[in-house]
Amino acid sequence: MPTYRAPVRDTLFVLNDVLGYGNHDNLPGFADASPDVVEAILAEGAKLAENIMQPLNRVGDMEGCVRNDDGSVTTPKGFDDAYRQYCEGGWLGLATPAEFGGQGLPYTVHSAVSEYLVSANMALMMYPGLTQGAVAAILAHGSDEQKKKWLPKMVEGTWTGTMNLTEPHCGTDLGLLTTKAAPDGKGGYRISGQKIFISAGEHDLSENIIHLVLARIEGAPAGVKGISLFVVPKVMVDDEGELGERNAVSCGAIEEKMGIHGNATCVMNYDEATGYLLGEENGGLKAMFTMMNEARLGVGLQGHAMGEAAYQAAVDYARERLQGRALSGPKAPDKKADPIIVHPDIRRNLMTIRAFNEGGRALILWTALKSDIAHLSDDAKEKEAASDHLALMTPVIKGVLTDKGFDHAVMAQQVFGGHGYVEEHGMSQFVRDARIAMIYEGANGIQALDLVGRKLPQNGGRAVQAFFKEVGEFCEAHRSDEAMAPLTKALKKGLNDLQAASLWLMQNALQKPDNAGAASYDYMHLMGLVALGLMWGRMVKTAQDRLAEGGDADKAFLEAKIMTGRYFMERVMPETAAHLARISSGSDTMMAMPEDAF
Amino acid sequence: MPTYRAPVRDTLFVLNDVLGYGNHDNLPGFADASPDVVEAILAEGAKLAENIMQPLNRVGDMEGCVRNDDGSVTTPKGFDDAYRQYCEGGWLGLATPAEFGGQGLPYTVHSAVSEYLVSANMALMMYPGLTQGAVAAILAHGSDEQKKKWLPKMVEGTWTGTMNLTEPHCGTDLGLLTTKAAPDGKGGYRISGQKIFISAGEHDLSENIIHLVLARIEGAPAGVKGISLFVVPKVMVDDEGELGERNAVSCGAIEEKMGIHGNATCVMNYDEATGYLLGEENGGLKAMFTMMNEARLGVGLQGHAMGEAAYQAAVDYARERLQGRALSGPKAPDKKADPIIVHPDIRRNLMTIRAFNEGGRALILWTALKSDIAHLSDDAKEKEAASDHLALMTPVIKGVLTDKGFDHAVMAQQVFGGHGYVEEHGMSQFVRDARIAMIYEGANGIQALDLVGRKLPQNGGRAVQAFFKEVGEFCEAHRSDEAMAPLTKALKKGLNDLQAASLWLMQNALQKPDNAGAASYDYMHLMGLVALGLMWGRMVKTAQDRLAEGGDADKAFLEAKIMTGRYFMERVMPETAAHLARISSGSDTMMAMPEDAF
Repeated sequence: MPTYRAPVRDTLFVLNDVLGYGNHDNLPGFADASPDVVEAILAEGAKLAENIMQPLNRVGDMEGCVRNDDGSVTTPKGFDDAYRQYCEGGWLGLATPAEFGGQGLPYTVHSAVSEYLVSANMALMMYPGLTQGAVAAILAHGSDEQKKKWLPKMVEGTWTGTMNLTEPHCGTDLGLLTTKAAPDGKGGYRISGQKIFISAGEHDLSENIIHLVLARIEGAPAGVKGISLFVVPKVMVDDEGELGERNAVSCGAIEEKMGIHGNATCVMNYDEATGYLLGEENGGLKAMFTMMNEARLGVGLQGHAMGEAAYQAAVDYARERLQGRALSGPKAPDKKADPIIVHPDIRRNLMTIRAFNEGGRALILWTALKSDIAHLSDDAKEKEAASDHLALMTPVIKGVLTDKGFDHAVMAQQVFGGHGYVEEHGMSQFVRDARIAMIYEGANGIQALDLVGRKLPQNGGRAVQAFFKEVGEFCEAHRSDEAMAPLTKALKKGLNDLQAASLWLMQNALQKPDNAGAASYDYMHLMGLVALGLMWGRMVKTAQDRLAEGGDADKAFLEAKIMTGRYFMERVMPETAAHLARISSGSDTMMAMPEDAF
Repeated sequence: MPTYRAPVRDTLFVLNDVLGYGNHDNLPGFADASPDVVEAILAEGAKLAENIMQPLNRVGDMEGCVRNDDGSVTTPKGFDDAYRQYCEGGWLGLATPAEFGGQGLPYTVHSAVSEYLVSANMALMMYPGLTQGAVAAILAHGSDEQKKKWLPKMVEGTWTGTMNLTEPHCGTDLGLLTTKAAPDGKGGYRISGQKIFISAGEHDLSENIIHLVLARIEGAPAGVKGISLFVVPKVMVDDEGELGERNAVSCGAIEEKMGIHGNATCVMNYDEATGYLLGEENGGLKAMFTMMNEARLGVGLQGHAMGEAAYQAAVDYARERLQGRALSGPKAPDKKADPIIVHPDIRRNLMTIRAFNEGGRALILWTALKSDIAHLSDDAKEKEAASDHLALMTPVIKGVLTDKGFDHAVMAQQVFGGHGYVEEHGMSQFVRDARIAMIYEGANGIQALDLVGRKLPQNGGRAVQAFFKEVGEFCEAHRSDEAMAPLTKALKKGLNDLQAASLWLMQNALQKPDNAGAASYDYMHLMGLVALGLMWGRMVKTAQDRLAEGGDADKAFLEAKIMTGRYFMERVMPETAAHLARISSGSDTMMAMPEDAF
């Protein structure tokens, strides 16, 4: 069974040394979370992840969730106790305003800790994860009364939340949604319809479940313009906040699925269930996107977290498993064979995963910090730039880090050979769990379309131009630094490819939208590589500076950072040219094929 | 649930039009299998695959195999009947000499039919697949007496076979093998030890199981030079061929694994079991490689077959699932939404898979034909060239087609969105089943080392030089053909990258073997792309010629072939440059990292 060690040292390097987290103490909440406090929080979060969450990961996979005949759902053994400890530690509301029982700390800190917890037990962490999404939507769109009624119990974890979008015939295309809402004459609505793939839709971890449900009010316009968002509690709550009768919502079935067995994926039936409008009538899509955007960052983090957990397990195995001799001569002559970590091809797997993990961590935390700035800054210009960054990077983080997280779980599994294919070692679970992150909260093809079709042209391309400028300036600033030159050269080459791809889109996709669709997936990955490349440029520069300052205690850490950065530039960045070539081949060959010729 | 349609039309195009199968009727067995006969065989094989094997695929996944308390293993419901029909149809011995009850037909025909059967039910087809490998080893290394004793029952399928290599501490590095063989004084041996990951090690489909077991005879040299191969029957067989007592070999457990649940993966315990030396004392490794090489082609075919099955399911879903509107305007205005096959990014997935499937089919059949020539030709030069090709392409087919088969099962699953993640649609099974092919019969990293370390330098690079020449001549021959020029240009670029990579290896890997290890995986994939590119060049040229001849009935088929070929060149071949860049970055960044810094 894999063990897990939260990479606290690396998180601190990114936050403090690379991102200058401590310089943001002008923002609300940041002063309360000084670097020292953050270090203590990370250490506590690490303990919770390593000692409480991780030991339940395989239990959750093997036992799964069980739907009982009465429609109730039993979660795997130990989940309830672990969830209770998580709630009692105040982790669920770490970044929620104190007004509703949260700790009001930066989202950046929340993201840093979440990585550990998700690496340790992704399926379990989905229960509070969905609650956090629902809390965000109620915070953004709820009336004061609604906030007061629903939030405190959700923030303490006594009640959990869900997102109900998908219906059997309607996933990506929410315009096809048919769940109905009829006014009940008492200010509420009767919600009727069936929702599928509802994560944490029913379970035994909380006293109540607060469903956020997209439905169509009678007489509303067709398509996405006629969708509204509703709060539908599992158990009714009276004005004093006391639980009353069961609402007419129930779990009809739980899905048998490839992974995340510890989380109940439910078919939810609404049979004239009482619901309350959240936000404006017919404004449901916009409200849902509040949840969605934060959830997408959270899903990107899941992909990243799976890559990290799988990497650690593969490193442990590669150090222990004795097989063959190094090509350059025996390295452990006293043993029957060398540990397989001596073999270049094993290291190629490990280094590739590591380069993405450390780059991904920096990209997630950088973007989380921008999210805090976007929400909290009172400098309009800084706020705008941070919002731009957040909007641009959300699909990239979701799409690229989940694709790579899955690929890397597969690579880590490969290091185990046949032992990776049997369930006993836990590597299959990482692969099976990581797979879902490429699909939910908008399949990655949708992320690519969001990036190319929506985020690029927004505000005349302001966000992407600012990103180009930032990368270009970094390359320019360090190109005469001899130690940095190989990195900035590779990064500049990647930036050139990205800019060429952007120009191609401007020239070819406006008249012919299929060219945008055909280019989108490669464009998303191309931008991801450049963004990760920038992170690596910064991390290596920082590591060099710290080494020059004589940070002896950290010498090995900093040197490994520099080597990994070089590996990223040599082995990963060359992919940008292939993406550009594919993008500029256009859509003709794929669109010309008649439908029945496939 | 996915349906499956054996791609007979495409197989015939490759065999007859591209490879000129009919021109080889000078080879033994080919005259009996004229193109007409082959077409009839393929049609029968297609029926067996579609109607008998495929309907049991999901049953096998859900039920799995069960080990009973007495050590017997029960296969999923229906497997015994399907296996019986397969045997009665004479499919197991299709390419085995008539002398031992086979049909003596070309291996090429066997490969063509195997694709269908494996696409339909990979787990079930492993039972006869392992038998075929064991038959090949006994044919090559057994005494006349042994052949007579074991083969006829195996060829008719009454007895099945297995390969027993792996032990808990010993997988890739067979030198560590500890299973013992002690002479029993009666011409046989007593075999003792434990073998793991033994596919089809125990089951209820056959009367007897003939295990081929690697073990070390007492006093043999250490390492791989002291390994011998033994025949160890589950049930003893007397001189009249009658079954007698149980031998001291038993299934200790079956593994719980990610996929191929319908095949029993066994821990086999040998407790002074009676075994018979096969081939020479201490010649076990060589003998085992007879099995291995054929098995590796078979595993490459599994990867390919999974890609094909997953593709078909994804196409069906993409035609039926209504979601969103085409970017260029509604295509099915009478429906609530367009089928998702209108979306470029869906087509990108489908076309990518298709381009590899059709290219992979051609590469497999081309190589199978070379295998027939290598074994059957009486022209020494032709025989040598065919053997060279077979040796060179075996690791490429195994490594590249299984990596891609898995990737493409994942892509096909992605087309289903959330519906791909639930088990109900069968897409998860394709992914989980396909995963093993990257691992067994030598993990793909080992295939890459075999290619770079063994196959490239063999006979002074004769095989690879011949391959370069063949690709180069094809490009040269068609570069002034206007319709072919875009293809030959892309293929030539790929060939240049492959030649540059080969030169880099010659200049950098001889002195420093780590450079070979660090380059091997990318080199294998680079060679795979060029080989597939050559197949596409030939297929497109053939399709153009047929169209020019006015093959009206096949117009749609031939046009689709040309479009898919163009797609392969535009969208897949650009990857060769990234492989070359990675290869020529060398091993320094990955080898410099101290082991404890990972």
